[in-house]
Amino acid sequence: MEMPSIYFERAVNQMAQLPGIGRKTAMRLVLHLLRRDREDVETLAASLSDLVANVRYCRVCHNICDDEECAICRSPRRDHSLVCVVENVQDVMAIEATQTYNGVYHVLGGIISPIDGIGPQDLEIDSLIERVRSGGVVEVIFALSPTMEGDTTCFYIFRKLADTAVKVTTIARGVAQNEQLHYTDELTLGRSIVDRRPFKS
Amino acid sequence: MEMPSIYFERAVNQMAQLPGIGRKTAMRLVLHLLRRDREDVETLAASLSDLVANVRYCRVCHNICDDEECAICRSPRRDHSLVCVVENVQDVMAIEATQTYNGVYHVLGGIISPIDGIGPQDLEIDSLIERVRSGGVVEVIFALSPTMEGDTTCFYIFRKLADTAVKVTTIARGVAQNEQLHYTDELTLGRSIVDRRPFKS
Repeated sequence: MEMPSIYFERAVNQMAQLPGIGRKTAMRLVLHLLRRDREDVETLAASLSDLVANVRYCRVCHNICDDEECAICRSPRRDHSLVCVVENVQDVMAIEATQTYNGVYHVLGGIISPIDGIGPQDLEIDSLIERVRSGGVVEVIFALSPTMEGDTTCFYIFRKLADTAVKVTTIARGVAQNEQLHYTDELTLGRSIVDRRPFKS
Repeated sequence: MEMPSIYFERAVNQMAQLPGIGRKTAMRLVLHLLRRDREDVETLAASLSDLVANVRYCRVCHNICDDEECAICRSPRRDHSLVCVVENVQDVMAIEATQTYNGVYHVLGGIISPIDGIGPQDLEIDSLIERVRSGGVVEVIFALSPTMEGDTTCFYIFRKLADTAVKVTTIARGVAQNEQLHYTDELTLGRSIVDRRPFKS
């Protein structure tokens, strides 16, 4: 489809490179921007420039932050002996939103996935091992996706930590809260029976 | 959900203002941008700034363009006596993509929709009437959506053009090409029988 303007075309091409945004959606978004005030669009453009110019990664947990260390790692009210290992920044925010966890995090930046060419060296695994070895960490909690890649990553890290005294746990898997039992997939339901636990009233 | 970085938060807030993009999607897009090369993101940001700074609207047909007049209005190979009235720029591109139309366009910039507070004065209707009155236009083709708003807009313009000699037509409505007859909605099917035309083999 021929575009009526080179600036329009460039903006559409750029937007269409975002994940999950095809050319039709990109065109719709750009036409929307043309209807907005010019300052609004400048603010959007500036926010993206500022983002890549200023966002940093916490040197301890690799969460994104604005300083050397993130607010969670700096907080004296958090339990720094408890380290929750997550795949990405979204997972940190998801767990924080539950308001049930008072420890700190370690963001791997992905999970081991040979099919996508992601090996242990591409992730923040060495820094995690080093963090545990340097002392102060009592428990490492795996909070990775319950997929083959997640399990592989857990197993890899578990083996690397074998010669340390750290306790290694993983978040509970089972039937989701408020889920209808007969809609739960077989694997989850089967495993939830095997992993049954004492009933507490 | 508390954000780990102010720059991250600002970018997410900005992206979430785009139509059809919620906060979760905005977050996913911004995290994707953080994984991209910094130059890529700068290019995206610049393309949006350039867009609002440089895109203009054709003074004849109000299509977006880079100059005073768009390439279609400037072209000597197009039939300037044939004016196709469309709602927006996407419609121009959609019709151009069919490669069946050799006339020119008039982009209204919307359709009459009292429920959205859009009246005739908000659209490029006066300029269309003036364009017809100033001569040279033999036929005006309505290519608006077959909705109540589209029909209202056609009717409004038709009345405004009543005292001119211009021929007014509208694009054909009926059963879509390759559509299964029994899946066609009743209104379309019924109208396609009323509007039946001589069979040409």
